[in-house]
Amino acid sequence: MNYRPLFFKNNALYLLDQKALPAKLCYRRCDSARDVACAIRDMTVRGAPLIGQAAAWGWYLDLARVRDRRGWGDAARRAARGLGLARPPARNLKARLELLQRRFGNEESTLLDKKRTLKKFLLAQETEWENITAAMARHGSGLLRARAQVLTHCNTGRLATLGRGTAFAVIDEAHRQGKLKRVFACETRPYLQGMRLTMWELGQAGIPSTLITDGMAAYLMSKKNISAVLVGADRVAANGDTANKIGTLSLALAAKHYGVSFYVVCPEETIDRSLGSGRDIVVEERSTEEVVVIAGRRLAPPGISVWHPAFDVTPHDLISAVVTEKGVWRFRG
Amino acid sequence: MNYRPLFFKNNALYLLDQKALPAKLCYRRCDSARDVACAIRDMTVRGAPLIGQAAAWGWYLDLARVRDRRGWGDAARRAARGLGLARPPARNLKARLELLQRRFGNEESTLLDKKRTLKKFLLAQETEWENITAAMARHGSGLLRARAQVLTHCNTGRLATLGRGTAFAVIDEAHRQGKLKRVFACETRPYLQGMRLTMWELGQAGIPSTLITDGMAAYLMSKKNISAVLVGADRVAANGDTANKIGTLSLALAAKHYGVSFYVVCPEETIDRSLGSGRDIVVEERSTEEVVVIAGRRLAPPGISVWHPAFDVTPHDLISAVVTEKGVWRFRG
Repeated sequence: MNYRPLFFKNNALYLLDQKALPAKLCYRRCDSARDVACAIRDMTVRGAPLIGQAAAWGWYLDLARVRDRRGWGDAARRAARGLGLARPPARNLKARLELLQRRFGNEESTLLDKKRTLKKFLLAQETEWENITAAMARHGSGLLRARAQVLTHCNTGRLATLGRGTAFAVIDEAHRQGKLKRVFACETRPYLQGMRLTMWELGQAGIPSTLITDGMAAYLMSKKNISAVLVGADRVAANGDTANKIGTLSLALAAKHYGVSFYVVCPEETIDRSLGSGRDIVVEERSTEEVVVIAGRRLAPPGISVWHPAFDVTPHDLISAVVTEKGVWRFRG
Repeated sequence: MNYRPLFFKNNALYLLDQKALPAKLCYRRCDSARDVACAIRDMTVRGAPLIGQAAAWGWYLDLARVRDRRGWGDAARRAARGLGLARPPARNLKARLELLQRRFGNEESTLLDKKRTLKKFLLAQETEWENITAAMARHGSGLLRARAQVLTHCNTGRLATLGRGTAFAVIDEAHRQGKLKRVFACETRPYLQGMRLTMWELGQAGIPSTLITDGMAAYLMSKKNISAVLVGADRVAANGDTANKIGTLSLALAAKHYGVSFYVVCPEETIDRSLGSGRDIVVEERSTEEVVVIAGRRLAPPGISVWHPAFDVTPHDLISAVVTEKGVWRFRG
């Protein structure tokens, strides 16, 4: 099946509704930056690199409606602010909006020219992601040995990026090269991106795969021959400390204990060199409801307290290497 | 609220339906060993020590129907076999059935006497559990310091034992002594015993508590001041290796990394001295459905493969101490 996580058509952005997967494959239409911010906040669209591109289109949607050249700068700033607040920890979101602001926020040219150039730029970026993710896939798959069994977390496939994905692209490439035996996927509570999205994408790609709950990962590493853990990233600090979907740190600790390689796969854009270490990364705390309501039913007793950090921070000394489109950045053996 | 996880009345055993909690508090009636075995298999009744007592009553139910003394031995063996197969890794289940077989399986006396003595013995065991769990609570709470914040897994309260519970009893005792600041409970996928049962029991006992998903535990230990992890056990080998609810090993690894004490709390009955180490413990693998169907809805794509070990084995070098009614058995600092 061919699926695109988003596409732009007739002056609207269509986002694949990732909350409805795998039961339904449907798209949500967005006509403004506010629509896109809302879709980012409520997890209709997710995946750090994909959020960046969705936000870029959201920014465009507001600017495409500007009728007076003098309103351009204000509209650009307002849209960027609203979109930037939708998912504060997502590095790509911030990086993309800053890039757009820098390149198109105050450009001196006719309105029509501005709009055309911006749209062309955004479409070109989508093609560019095919190249970026293909390069990550190449570098990452070189780290895996024959008959590799790997473990992954959350969703890092086409649904998370544009192009082939991050960690998923490495797994897919290893499969194409015939050196992947099996991938195990953590279900990734509370949102179950692993169960709902990754298992679906692995099925689409015909990759041998097995689902586990997050709590099974350490036992899996102790019992089965796992050669690597592969994850994406939401933000990587200058020293390699990595913020990623909650549960990642736990996998890194188990990997270290059992001598399993632990690879973070992300585009260069995800690396935030302005942050010295993971201590500077602000972790988003999300709602109680996202933990206690599953499949529309509240399963916990009423009125309880829940701690729900959306991400955790894995220190670089637990990471074997960070793989980007530029190459492999090694830490531990 | 007063709740009993099981009670015997008018020749029937009533089991609190733990699958319906916390939404509904209702009991399931069992009239035979087969009924009880079925309730154990489908998780209506759970918790290693409680399963032992439920099975003992199941055994009694079949024997109470024996009309001819010569049929007693056969009925006893048949009932024990059926019940023993319902949950093979549960140490208490096996230990209790062996004890009953030894004491009552071939006893020479009138049928009526046999039935009376057996029933009296089972009722006395229920009282005995109050003492056993109170002793564990005493020994365990002595290990906790003032203003302790602890983490627990699965459910180990009144719902899991009879009496005050295992790890839960220690937490409850520390709370009564005024030295517990807060307990964090892992939701415990796939069955969500932590979210549904432990959070409910903690609420009933008025203990300050916060729910997390299993994948958050390592990050919790890295961010909050957690002094101990307290868990129950399904089976402990002679060297201290411990089989417990899946996810326990992952907690033990994180606890070791962050210098958090890791305590296993269980009755002596759970220790199986016939097993040299955890390698000899057979781990039950349960169904795909229990992982992918939540709240009655199938959330994963159809036809996927799932690995579902119900337990994992934590080696004793990751365990600070095993606490039983007899005292504290120390391993690592």
